[in-house]
Amino acid sequence: MTVRGAPAIGVTAAMGLALAAKRNKRKESRLLLEDLEKAGELFCVSRPTARNLFWAVERMLKKAREAVAQGRDVRRAMVDEARLMADEDVEANRRIGAFGAELIEDGDTILTHCNTGTMATVSYGTAFGVIRTAISQGKKVNVIATETRPRLQGARITAYEALSGKIPTTLIVDGAVGIAMSKGMVNKVIVGADRITRTAVINKVGTLVIALAARHHGVPFYSAAPLTTFDLTGESTEVSIEERPPGEVTQILGRLIAPRGIKVFNPAFDSTPLDLVTGVITDRGVFSSEQVRNMPAM
Amino acid sequence: MTVRGAPAIGVTAAMGLALAAKRNKRKESRLLLEDLEKAGELFCVSRPTARNLFWAVERMLKKAREAVAQGRDVRRAMVDEARLMADEDVEANRRIGAFGAELIEDGDTILTHCNTGTMATVSYGTAFGVIRTAISQGKKVNVIATETRPRLQGARITAYEALSGKIPTTLIVDGAVGIAMSKGMVNKVIVGADRITRTAVINKVGTLVIALAARHHGVPFYSAAPLTTFDLTGESTEVSIEERPPGEVTQILGRLIAPRGIKVFNPAFDSTPLDLVTGVITDRGVFSSEQVRNMPAM
Repeated sequence: MTVRGAPAIGVTAAMGLALAAKRNKRKESRLLLEDLEKAGELFCVSRPTARNLFWAVERMLKKAREAVAQGRDVRRAMVDEARLMADEDVEANRRIGAFGAELIEDGDTILTHCNTGTMATVSYGTAFGVIRTAISQGKKVNVIATETRPRLQGARITAYEALSGKIPTTLIVDGAVGIAMSKGMVNKVIVGADRITRTAVINKVGTLVIALAARHHGVPFYSAAPLTTFDLTGESTEVSIEERPPGEVTQILGRLIAPRGIKVFNPAFDSTPLDLVTGVITDRGVFSSEQVRNMPAM
Repeated sequence: MTVRGAPAIGVTAAMGLALAAKRNKRKESRLLLEDLEKAGELFCVSRPTARNLFWAVERMLKKAREAVAQGRDVRRAMVDEARLMADEDVEANRRIGAFGAELIEDGDTILTHCNTGTMATVSYGTAFGVIRTAISQGKKVNVIATETRPRLQGARITAYEALSGKIPTTLIVDGAVGIAMSKGMVNKVIVGADRITRTAVINKVGTLVIALAARHHGVPFYSAAPLTTFDLTGESTEVSIEERPPGEVTQILGRLIAPRGIKVFNPAFDSTPLDLVTGVITDRGVFSSEQVRNMPAM
């Protein structure tokens, strides 16, 4: 959790593998490759839900195998690939911003969840990048940010980015999304994604009820994510949802807020059916749920 | 907020008026009555949403006026009335528990929000009283309690009551209600109410999204409250929703969790349309939304 945000997790894993390659003393390429594959597995079990992590590890290992097969410098190839991936993430984010900003009207209030800004990506941000782009185009945009329990990424990070970027932002508790919408305070919802399948957007816990509230109140609900977040391989909706330690719920800033001994269920993410999603804003354009369902596997 | 929970607020106001009467030195009944009416107004502005507060103040002042008209001891009449109201609240809670427990099946897991137990009422509880009654009947019941930001009544009070009553309870953040239901972990939702009108249940902020999640997942959603919580006088759905200080959101246990200067929207309650409510468990039986809509004014 030192690194958070699916795109940031992906590129960090790539950088980590490049570093592992550079530091590895093996002379024989085959043995180096074995070590890197083990390191890749370790990265993958660290955060089982973020699609970008698996994608990044697969891409880095593929590059390493290619370099070995072609007799090139594996270490150099991996460092170059990781740098390329970081650059590509920034570019993807800028494209997401541009496509998404077209959906935003002057005067809109956008509700967002968790943190999807510069600190969840290599730079710029996904959902928050869309807001940033719309504002840079001269549109007047207000933001409602959920605090995002248990780790308070909205209160701590999004609120900070909003204040430092002078983006007018109002903080609410997660339970207040319903009344914010029923009072007509929200024009659109834009959240990020940790994984997008043909049936669902898997994102920070709390996203599902935001999507349900948006549907009930007729508010468009968008998820913004690069194509690297898409998992179109299987038909299965059975995505492993990471469960995290009870202490994230029972303690805030190290202080107990619940009685000792209470049982806790602490899933990090939830799964929002694509039926509840108006559109997915990607680096290749905005796709409807129907288009995501029928997208060719990558 | 020293006293919380609509029934507890109502009876506390009654006790407060009785105390105000006892301490008042006026010799002339008319002047005493004027003082008590002013005190009643002060009580009413303290928590504008809790229906029971208005009900309790009205009933106490009516009693005072009757006593004056009949030449009886106003102070004595008010103390007796407040005591009677406290006894009636306990009795109403027990009846709610008995009616509600009939809806609970052996093995059910009940999701509840905020605190509705002994510390939200004179004794026993509303929604939590239903759970307590079902367990006392020998049914095996599990509870999922939301932490209930911003004031964490679920984490602090419900979890404490559950542990001390040995009621198997799992704590979740408010945003996790969606995934708890989509994983099939919840058989029924029972929450309390601060006011019930012909169109909506007004209850702790976060209730609306729980009701939407319950509807989406086919989980029955009940509100438990005494008839003193009902406001059937007007046709209006315009209930004043109390907004509370930003510090409840930006600080936890006195420590800042958000950057200084961030704007906050902190409504204490939200309004759940009766259409989303399977039934209202009262001290006079369980009523459908349709029955509440057509209930005679009291």
